[in-house]
Amino acid sequence: MRRRWFRGPDLSPWAAAILAFALILPSPGFAEDPLPSWRDGASKAAIVEFVAAVTAEGGQDFVPAQGRLAVFDNDGTLWSEQPIYVQFAFVLDRIRELSPAHPEWKETEPFKSVLAGNIKNVMAQGEKGIAKLLAATHAGMDTDAFSDIVLTWLTSARHPKYARPYSSLVYQPMLELLAYLRANGFRTYIVSGGGADFMRPWAEKSYGVPPDQVIGSMIDLKYEVQDGKPVLMREPGIDFVDDGPGKPVGIYRQLGERPIAAFGNSDGDYQMLEWVTAGEGRRLGMIVHHTDELRETAYDRDSPVGKLDKALDDAAAKGWHVIDMKADWLAVFPAWPPQ
Amino acid sequence: MRRRWFRGPDLSPWAAAILAFALILPSPGFAEDPLPSWRDGASKAAIVEFVAAVTAEGGQDFVPAQGRLAVFDNDGTLWSEQPIYVQFAFVLDRIRELSPAHPEWKETEPFKSVLAGNIKNVMAQGEKGIAKLLAATHAGMDTDAFSDIVLTWLTSARHPKYARPYSSLVYQPMLELLAYLRANGFRTYIVSGGGADFMRPWAEKSYGVPPDQVIGSMIDLKYEVQDGKPVLMREPGIDFVDDGPGKPVGIYRQLGERPIAAFGNSDGDYQMLEWVTAGEGRRLGMIVHHTDELRETAYDRDSPVGKLDKALDDAAAKGWHVIDMKADWLAVFPAWPPQ
Repeated sequence: MRRRWFRGPDLSPWAAAILAFALILPSPGFAEDPLPSWRDGASKAAIVEFVAAVTAEGGQDFVPAQGRLAVFDNDGTLWSEQPIYVQFAFVLDRIRELSPAHPEWKETEPFKSVLAGNIKNVMAQGEKGIAKLLAATHAGMDTDAFSDIVLTWLTSARHPKYARPYSSLVYQPMLELLAYLRANGFRTYIVSGGGADFMRPWAEKSYGVPPDQVIGSMIDLKYEVQDGKPVLMREPGIDFVDDGPGKPVGIYRQLGERPIAAFGNSDGDYQMLEWVTAGEGRRLGMIVHHTDELRETAYDRDSPVGKLDKALDDAAAKGWHVIDMKADWLAVFPAWPPQ
Repeated sequence: MRRRWFRGPDLSPWAAAILAFALILPSPGFAEDPLPSWRDGASKAAIVEFVAAVTAEGGQDFVPAQGRLAVFDNDGTLWSEQPIYVQFAFVLDRIRELSPAHPEWKETEPFKSVLAGNIKNVMAQGEKGIAKLLAATHAGMDTDAFSDIVLTWLTSARHPKYARPYSSLVYQPMLELLAYLRANGFRTYIVSGGGADFMRPWAEKSYGVPPDQVIGSMIDLKYEVQDGKPVLMREPGIDFVDDGPGKPVGIYRQLGERPIAAFGNSDGDYQMLEWVTAGEGRRLGMIVHHTDELRETAYDRDSPVGKLDKALDDAAAKGWHVIDMKADWLAVFPAWPPQ
């Protein structure tokens, strides 16, 4: 199907949006709205128009399947990041769980503050404190063992506010968006400041994103043969921080290409959005703005987690669409327990 | 089609091989041998049997498509690496090309020796010398500019012995193997000690391997905005060396999974072969042994380029198949000029 009329210069954005919606109305060829949790409006229109444009063979914005790459931040973009990053909750739980074997932690920071439940004190110790916590919880085992630890934790842990598994606190509209893009030939990558190996064990089940499409921060790995068995040991050093200006670097290292669509929610996604949307041809950059106090948490400029300030200021000038979670999303989380 | 009979415990390896060949004989369903440049024998049988086993739905060795990952070393496995690595030839040519703008190089090592054509002297300066040459030829430009430089060079440069482009000195049997694996649902990754960004610009055209399926050594990248344009600048530091024990690390960092088939030709591929073939389930490890003095170059234990010693000693015990280039390959290179 040719859709060149979509991008005709004589078509106003709103007319294009209306035409775009026509495509997803019930019809013999496309029976259901692929984005049912997105309210009809500018955000949904931006998505549908973009996908129609880059998939229209013969159209001026057509992109072959190999180039249809979309990148998604994880924390705050695909799942909830409040009141603390999920991976940080994992760290705190692991420290508590491992503490019986480490009596010295009762007298040593930052472990002492973790065990006392004084998170403010933990945070006050900055990067050095975090590095010690990471070394104690993320290193010293092989990659298979770490995957098992993550999965075991994720199965039993519950979010303090919603009392349901963290993996159920993924955003329903973003799940639909991921599936919609993939149905249109996109590969959907996660590009997170969190650890790649923390996300890979569950990203396929939760998001339909296989391990090789997860980009994230990395710990040092060391190849060893233990009792004749080759393993990749996780070492205490940080190999790569996939945040801020690290995101374009991490994407290029893994893909060797520049994606055409990027989705984020915080200033840590600024450079990823900037790099992706500055490329030639049709591009899409979107920011999830956490405006929904009732269904989730309302936060942006002053939040220590997921701070959104500069990216919000520059969104209009950069052509990034700001998704108003409260107004644009008909649902936030999938039903729990699953129905 | 079910192929469980393939792996029946009562079937000798040779009987299985014969059955495997039956699959690729002319028939209504599979009209042509997908590996015409491979002589019928143990190497070809090992490949065909392995593919039949892991793609046989319901069979004990069946692997779903997502897990069908095969990794290939590049230099000496997919293309010729003698008398010097192609990327090293690129470095030498670039130094000569850039030298008019660097009069100081006439008096400074290792540039002086490069310009004098004294390669032995260059090599004698070891890693520090190589690092200086890499910084002068691989850094100081953005990623797009570097891709252009590589492609321009590859188009004009000619191999000193064969007088044809390096990109035409790929191994015809390996091209067939790559295509055969992909036709059977595999993703085929290049895992090279060479630079990922040196291979990505041409790997798709030469091998059918897209940029995101190229793993290699990496230079430091830095995100910058220059005159309003975001770029990834190539910096002089080495970020990652994808060789020896670095290969399993590089693969895991990018894929988060362990492949089921590995192909190499030197001791630099030892750990990759070891790690891949030690995994559970059916595995395939193969070594290209350069035995063909007439059609290419015969070398192994004593070669400074592509040294094959320990991996050759351990191949039998590890279950790795050694491909005898002279005996197993009916053709080495594709015809040139292309016919």
